[in-house]
Amino acid sequence: MTRAYFQQIEPSPQGTEFSKDDFLEQLAWTRDGLIPVITQQHDSGEVLMMAWMNRESLALTLSTGWVTYWSRSRNKLWKKGESSGHLQRLIKLRIDCDGDTLLCLVDQDGAACHTGRDNCFYFS
Amino acid sequence: MTRAYFQQIEPSPQGTEFSKDDFLEQLAWTRDGLIPVITQQHDSGEVLMMAWMNRESLALTLSTGWVTYWSRSRNKLWKKGESSGHLQRLIKLRIDCDGDTLLCLVDQDGAACHTGRDNCFYFS
Repeated sequence: MTRAYFQQIEPSPQGTEFSKDDFLEQLAWTRDGLIPVITQQHDSGEVLMMAWMNRESLALTLSTGWVTYWSRSRNKLWKKGESSGHLQRLIKLRIDCDGDTLLCLVDQDGAACHTGRDNCFYFS
Repeated sequence: MTRAYFQQIEPSPQGTEFSKDDFLEQLAWTRDGLIPVITQQHDSGEVLMMAWMNRESLALTLSTGWVTYWSRSRNKLWKKGESSGHLQRLIKLRIDCDGDTLLCLVDQDGAACHTGRDNCFYFS
């Protein structure tokens, strides 16, 4: 499922800059126009949650610096923490080798999980 | 997208044990019978990759202790590292609050990424 664009730029020397528009357009959006996002606390490495973005939510995340997802259940933009106050400030966005997953490094304010837990992965 | 089963067991005291079969059956498998999996190095917290499992690959991961995905591009079981030798030993499996994402804590042997990099998230 490796995409030509990401294969092509893979050998580029570290520090090479690419067009942000190209990059975002080439992401492996699903048929529903979504991409999975892993959200990780930037300093501790704690994986907080997994959610989805569409193009608009990704653009908002990048322009505002506040992580904004696409809620598949409510079918609307979802600025994380807009009701709970538990905002996620974007520290860095990473993209994987296939362009089919985003990794958001964030600074999480309060609990990331709607249950009040620090992260969503509490079953083991 | 919270599922009734996971809502119901959410308030259970820490340490409560659940039927593994119930748990696996209740996961939010997609229409294609898949679930997204985040793979993290257990000690450093490094997020290594994101991939997908079906029921069979999850069962194999749990029974063998070697992380096995479902390859969507090759449409077959994919024991991570079976050709490269870069195996992933399962340390702990975590499940999120909605039962729609798995987090595999692993001990990664060698590079996790097919490009030879330690992890797949090298674009930023």
